[in-house]
Amino acid sequence: MVLELKVPHGDDLAALRPLLPVFLSYVLSFVYVGIYWNNHHHLLHAVRQVNGPTMWANLHLLFWLSLIPFVTGWMGQNHFHRIPVICYGLVLLMAGVAYSILTRILLRHHGKDSVLHKAIGSDFKGNLSLVAYLVAMPLAFVHPWISMGIYFAVAALWFIPDRRIESHLKE
Amino acid sequence: MVLELKVPHGDDLAALRPLLPVFLSYVLSFVYVGIYWNNHHHLLHAVRQVNGPTMWANLHLLFWLSLIPFVTGWMGQNHFHRIPVICYGLVLLMAGVAYSILTRILLRHHGKDSVLHKAIGSDFKGNLSLVAYLVAMPLAFVHPWISMGIYFAVAALWFIPDRRIESHLKE
Amino acid sequence: MVLELKVPHGDDLAALRPLLPVFLSYVLSFVYVGIYWNNHHHLLHAVRQVNGPTMWANLHLLFWLSLIPFVTGWMGQNHFHRIPVICYGLVLLMAGVAYSILTRILLRHHGKDSVLHKAIGSDFKGNLSLVAYLVAMPLAFVHPWISMGIYFAVAALWFIPDRRIESHLKE
Amino acid sequence: MVLELKVPHGDDLAALRPLLPVFLSYVLSFVYVGIYWNNHHHLLHAVRQVNGPTMWANLHLLFWLSLIPFVTGWMGQNHFHRIPVICYGLVLLMAGVAYSILTRILLRHHGKDSVLHKAIGSDFKGNLSLVAYLVAMPLAFVHPWISMGIYFAVAALWFIPDRRIESHLKE
Repeated sequence: MVLELKVPHGDDLAALRPLLPVFLSYVLSFVYVGIYWNNHHHLLHAVRQVNGPTMWANLHLLFWLSLIPFVTGWMGQNHFHRIPVICYGLVLLMAGVAYSILTRILLRHHGKDSVLHKAIGSDFKGNLSLVAYLVAMPLAFVHPWISMGIYFAVAALWFIPDRRIESHLKE
Repeated sequence: MVLELKVPHGDDLAALRPLLPVFLSYVLSFVYVGIYWNNHHHLLHAVRQVNGPTMWANLHLLFWLSLIPFVTGWMGQNHFHRIPVICYGLVLLMAGVAYSILTRILLRHHGKDSVLHKAIGSDFKGNLSLVAYLVAMPLAFVHPWISMGIYFAVAALWFIPDRRIESHLKE
Repeated sequence: MVLELKVPHGDDLAALRPLLPVFLSYVLSFVYVGIYWNNHHHLLHAVRQVNGPTMWANLHLLFWLSLIPFVTGWMGQNHFHRIPVICYGLVLLMAGVAYSILTRILLRHHGKDSVLHKAIGSDFKGNLSLVAYLVAMPLAFVHPWISMGIYFAVAALWFIPDRRIESHLKE
Repeated sequence: MVLELKVPHGDDLAALRPLLPVFLSYVLSFVYVGIYWNNHHHLLHAVRQVNGPTMWANLHLLFWLSLIPFVTGWMGQNHFHRIPVICYGLVLLMAGVAYSILTRILLRHHGKDSVLHKAIGSDFKGNLSLVAYLVAMPLAFVHPWISMGIYFAVAALWFIPDRRIESHLKE
């Protein structure tokens, strides 16, 4: 985990206060990286063989995830100002798109009856997340905390144990 | 291991002296991260299968461990001042709680006769550590070195080859 | 992935503009490290046993790859000035040479009929890349962007699904 | 590999000149870390089971290796001044001692006829290295480059394919 917090100079709790926004964005990014790590683990567990396109799609995903520490720090150090918040959303969106591409490439190489297919399901959550990011980004012009609220809501969505919820929503 | 020591500018031993508290906290944190790495390795070795809650509990543990370099640096750079020492203890406590949660989730999915159950035992040490952290934190208001002493004592506790000691203590 | 981007101080898009050259060199290096990671994975997958010389050759490759973040940052922060661009090419060249040495050592220990031999093929691309770096480096004295163009072209060359192209070129 | 080189501000070769000592110490440390990584890999490959003391001995080794980037940077930034050069030797010595302890603990748990025993041999090189470090450290008071020469010589010693040399020396 490459996210980093700079050590403050003071020795009291007040010294931690300016770090609060950085810490908050750190927590959010930790959760997002955790979600990707978690799902990525599940995904690759169900994969039987890895080929060229898969590795490129995987690298593409890693590229966007590698930008998360950068946008996290930028957003936190600017107290969730509009533009950094939008850029944060953009990186989340691109990581989501990259994950979706990786999933599709993997599905194409595995049959419809494969374990992988059952493990991924309809990717309802994935698509909902992409839409949420697209909605959240322009809303930062109204107020950045609306975007932040949506980013947190999407993260929460992935925490809920879902199979059942998903099937209800699809009916 | 992400703990870091900044290179001093001088070229004599005196240049190292201001680094001494940072180095001391580095050693303590190295030992703690080592203990977690060690036990974590043993724990996951005995696990037969990993599921969703396990990964979340694991991520929760990693979150608190990821804060150790931050509190280590803060504590060392402030010569073990009261508040950083308490925050250090708080992170140790939360990591301990996270480890305990991970252990319980793993035990719930494995029977009482499993290898895992025998590997973990009664978790006497784990609980004792949590109590020690809770006692150590407020004692920093008396003197931070009392807290530090307890943190070192807990670390030492995990070094001792224990099964026998544990069973004696429980009798 | 150890490439790093420093967080800017401003909170608008203008704050990102000075980072553009750094970002561009970051992307190029990410692609190169990705190519090596990708091919390295394929290479070691086909290897049956690892011996001393192999590990030294591997370490030699890692040494040059470990310098990529340094030359990337240097090149990006100096807006692709001549000398950093040449040094960047030198590191790419040496990494290419190291990869070629690793490949040859592996081939010597595996027969001509081995999976490894088929996996590597004639290493036409590898040799073409080395020649391209050698051509690109002095051309930085004409204009650094000529060198950069060649570096990007070599990276693109490794993206193309190749077996067929290769065999056509060899005819 | 956590060794790091700071990006210089200039854009010509002269900007690299002050980095030369840092680079030289980087190369030396890279080789040392490589040797440990190499031998460690061979060592653990021959091990059949890992127990508590082994993991502690391993952690002890990692502790000293984790200090190498620090002493490397300190030594390089002070142009190989006496005290940093001695500290560098001290860390090499302690890493060597830690490796020796790890080896002995592993040997105690495996019989004399084990693969491990044959893989390690008489550890002539290991002991010679320890003596060399002990000789090199005080010689820094004569001139630091004498110590540096010995550090390089020890590194070179580990490069040579050795079984035969060793047995000749032992006769």
